[in-house]
Amino acid sequence: MSETICALATSQGGALNVIRVSGSSAFEIVSGIFVPKRGMSLEERRSHTAVFGDICTDGNEVLDEVLLTIMRAPHSYTGEDTIEISCHASPYITQQILLALLDRGARQAAPGEFTMRAFLNGKMDLSRAEAVADLIASASKASHRLAINQLKGGFSNELGALRDKLLQLVSLMELELDFSEEDVEFANRGELLELCGEVETVMSRLASSFSVGNAVKNGVPVAIVGETNTGKSTLLNALLHEERAIVSDICGTTRDTVEGVMNLSGVTFRFIDTAGLRETHDVIERIGIERTLEQLKKSSIALWLIDPTADYGQIEEIAAKLLPVCRGKKLAVLVNKCDAVDPITLSRMMEWGKAMVERYGQDAEWENRDLWAISARQGTNLDKLEEFLVRSAALPAISTGDVVVTNVRHYEALVRALDNIREVKQGLADGISGDLVSEPLRAAIRNLSEIVGEVTSDEVLGNIFANFCIGK
Amino acid sequence: MSETICALATSQGGALNVIRVSGSSAFEIVSGIFVPKRGMSLEERRSHTAVFGDICTDGNEVLDEVLLTIMRAPHSYTGEDTIEISCHASPYITQQILLALLDRGARQAAPGEFTMRAFLNGKMDLSRAEAVADLIASASKASHRLAINQLKGGFSNELGALRDKLLQLVSLMELELDFSEEDVEFANRGELLELCGEVETVMSRLASSFSVGNAVKNGVPVAIVGETNTGKSTLLNALLHEERAIVSDICGTTRDTVEGVMNLSGVTFRFIDTAGLRETHDVIERIGIERTLEQLKKSSIALWLIDPTADYGQIEEIAAKLLPVCRGKKLAVLVNKCDAVDPITLSRMMEWGKAMVERYGQDAEWENRDLWAISARQGTNLDKLEEFLVRSAALPAISTGDVVVTNVRHYEALVRALDNIREVKQGLADGISGDLVSEPLRAAIRNLSEIVGEVTSDEVLGNIFANFCIGK
Repeated sequence: MSETICALATSQGGALNVIRVSGSSAFEIVSGIFVPKRGMSLEERRSHTAVFGDICTDGNEVLDEVLLTIMRAPHSYTGEDTIEISCHASPYITQQILLALLDRGARQAAPGEFTMRAFLNGKMDLSRAEAVADLIASASKASHRLAINQLKGGFSNELGALRDKLLQLVSLMELELDFSEEDVEFANRGELLELCGEVETVMSRLASSFSVGNAVKNGVPVAIVGETNTGKSTLLNALLHEERAIVSDICGTTRDTVEGVMNLSGVTFRFIDTAGLRETHDVIERIGIERTLEQLKKSSIALWLIDPTADYGQIEEIAAKLLPVCRGKKLAVLVNKCDAVDPITLSRMMEWGKAMVERYGQDAEWENRDLWAISARQGTNLDKLEEFLVRSAALPAISTGDVVVTNVRHYEALVRALDNIREVKQGLADGISGDLVSEPLRAAIRNLSEIVGEVTSDEVLGNIFANFCIGK
Repeated sequence: MSETICALATSQGGALNVIRVSGSSAFEIVSGIFVPKRGMSLEERRSHTAVFGDICTDGNEVLDEVLLTIMRAPHSYTGEDTIEISCHASPYITQQILLALLDRGARQAAPGEFTMRAFLNGKMDLSRAEAVADLIASASKASHRLAINQLKGGFSNELGALRDKLLQLVSLMELELDFSEEDVEFANRGELLELCGEVETVMSRLASSFSVGNAVKNGVPVAIVGETNTGKSTLLNALLHEERAIVSDICGTTRDTVEGVMNLSGVTFRFIDTAGLRETHDVIERIGIERTLEQLKKSSIALWLIDPTADYGQIEEIAAKLLPVCRGKKLAVLVNKCDAVDPITLSRMMEWGKAMVERYGQDAEWENRDLWAISARQGTNLDKLEEFLVRSAALPAISTGDVVVTNVRHYEALVRALDNIREVKQGLADGISGDLVSEPLRAAIRNLSEIVGEVTSDEVLGNIFANFCIGK
C-alpha cells in the first residue's frame, strides 16, 4: 500500500489510452516526466483539474502531448493521490510512459489492484468492489442492472440489516447466558426462534435468487442431448452462428464447460457440454449417459435431438433414462434431419415421438414440453426453437433496487450462513444451552461478514481481485 | 461544424472507456444525462475541471458512475466545447451512453472528425493533423520521432520558410512585370535564378528524405525473388514467424501489396509481393519476370533464392535479367535447402554462384553483396540473413527536430512543386518573359499550400481523415 502503482486502464488501441497512477508518490513521480504548457506545476494544482502538457521521458525530448486529470486523496477512486494520463494510443508511447513511471519508482499494478486499494482504504465494501468487475463485464441490460444495483450498495444494505438482526440474537442469547446460573426461566426462547425464522426467510430468499442472478449473469444453462450423429454440433453451430456467439470475459464465475454463449431477445443462454450418447453393441454406453444426466441436472432447458431413422426401441431406452431427469425443466424433443429423410419415415417418427412425450409428460409435469421436426443443417424451424428458448427462459424482470445474488462466492457464503442459522434454530427448538447455540450464530455472522469483506483472508482477497482486469 | 459529435475515443475493453463529445451543444446534451455527486451543475463548471457523478439515461435509473473532464472552447483539442466521459468499460454501458447522446441531438463522429475540426478551427495545420494519425500508429522509436517532429510543426515551419522565399520571388517577378513596358534592363534575373536555386535545393532535400521517411514509417522494402518452389514462402514464414509479424494499421500509406512486416533491431522491414518465376518449356515465363523486375525496382534490398539442384544455364538466364536491376540495391543470393541436398551438389552450386555474383558484381557496384547457403525449413543461417537485413537497411538515425517527409501526399506535392520550380528556373535562364514564368511559380506556392491545408478540396480532406480512427 505504500507503493505507488501504475497501469494502462484502457485497452490498447483506438485514439487515446489512459494510464492510471495511484499512491502517495503519484504527484512526485508524474512531475518528473511532465511539463505543463502553461501555469503552475503539477504539485500546486488543485484536485479534480485537468492539465495539458508534454511528457518528456528522455531529457528534453517530447514523447507526447497529454491531458492529465488530477485527483487528490481521499477524493479519488482508490482514496489515494491519483493522476490519469490521457495520451495518444500509440503502443510505443504507452510503453515508454509506463517504463518512465517504473523508472521513477512506480510499480506495475496487479489486476484489480486499484479497486483492492479502494476496498482497503474503505471507499467501498467487498461486494461493491466485486460489482465493479461485473459492471465492466456486463453486456446486457439485465446483467448491467444486477451489477449497478450491487455497486450502489443494495446487497450490502440487505446484508447489513441481516447482521443487525443476528447481533440482536447474539445479545439476547448472551443475556440468557448471564442469567443461566440463576436458573431463570426465559420466556424469550420463542422470541429468539421467531427472530431466527425471519433471518432464515431473508437468507433463503437471497440464496434462491442466485439461480436467477447466475442465469442473468452467466446465461440460462441449456443442455443439448442426443446420440452421436444426431446433429448436436450442427445445431449448436447453427444457433451460435446466426446469433453471433458472445463469450463472457469473467473468469471463475461458472464451473461448467461451456460450449457457447448467445443472446436472444436480451436473454443470455449458455450451452453446457454434454457427452454424445454412443451405442455399443445395442447398449447405450454407460459413461456417456451418466455424464449426460449429470449435465442435464445442471441445465434448466433440455433439447433432445432424435434421428428420424433411429430404432424405436433404443429411443425408448434413452427416454426411460433422460425423461425422469427432465422433470421441472423445459424440454424440447427435436426430430432432426427433416430435410434428409422421406416424409413417411419422418411423420411416423413424429407421431411415435409425440405419443412418447405425452406418455412421459403425464407424470413428469413439464411446464413446457414440445416436439417438432427441424433441420439443423438447413435451418428449418430454428426460429420456432429460438422462440421456445426465450419463452422457456422466463427470467423475471429485474427492477432498479432489486437485490439478486449473482456471485458464486456470495452464494456459497450465504448457504453456509443459512446452514448455521438452521442449526441455531434446531438448537433453540431442542432446548440446547445458549453457549452451544451461540457458536453457529457467530459462524453465521462471520459468513455474512466475509461477503462484504469485514472478515477476509489475504488469499480470498487475492483470488477475488485476480479476476479483475489490469488497470481497474 | 454546427453539429455536436460524439464517439468512443478508446478501444472497447480494459477497465475504462472514454467517450468524447465536442460541439456547441456538448454541455447542454451531456447535462441532460449527467447528475453530479455534489456541487454545481455542469454548465456552471469551469474549463479543465473533472466532475464525478452518475449517468442517468432512462429517467432516474443510474447507468454508471463516471468522471467527466470539461474543456471549454477554444481551449480544447477541437477548439470547441468538449466533454470527455470516462465510464466503466462495459460494452453495454458504452453503447447506452452513446445512444443517449445521439438521442439528445449529438451525431456519431466520422473517423478523424475531431482532428478535422481542430484543423478547420485553426488549432493545427493539415500536416500536423496528419502527424496525429502517424503518432497513434507509431510502434517504434524512429517512427514515433518522425511523427512527433511533424506534430511539433518542424515540417510546417520549413514549408513556411520555403513559401516566404517563393513569395519574395513572385514580388520580384511582378516588379519586373510592372516595369516591363518601359523596357528597363533588369539586373536581378541573376538574383531570381539564385533564389530559385536555393528553393530547389531545400525542396529536393525534403523530397529525397521521403525514401528514409517512408522506410521508417512503412518499413524498408525487401523483395524475395526466385523460381517457384525455391522456398520463397517458407523463408518468408520463417522470418515473420520468428520475429512476430507486426502489420501496420495505417491505411493508404503504401501502395504495394505487402506480404508481411517485421521489426528487427528497431528497423521495420516490409516484404513486397513478387511473382514466383515459373519455367515454361525451358523459358522463364515472361509475365512473371516482368512483374518481379517491377517489384524489385521498388525494393531497396533483394533476396534471391536459388535451388542447389537447379540448372546452371537457367540460373544464368535469370541472373542476366535480375542482376542489372539490382544495381545500387543490397543483394543476398541464398542457396536454399542446404539440409536436403548432398554436400557435393551444394558446394558446386555455392562455388558456381559465388563466381557468378563476382562476375556481375564487378560492374554492378553493389554496396553489399553476398552469397551463402541456408535452410529456410530448418532455420539454418537465418541469423546471418537477419544481420544482413539490419546492416543493409542502414537507415540514418533521426534526431529531435529533423525534418523528414513521411507522407505520400506531401511527397507528391513536393515533387510537383519541384517540377514547377525547375520550369521557373529554365524559363529564367531562357529569358522567357516574367508573366509566363510567374505561372509555374504560383503553381509551386499552391502545391506547398496543399501540404499544410491552406488550399485543399473537401475531397482531399475527406480522404485524409478517412484514414484516421474513429474518436480522434
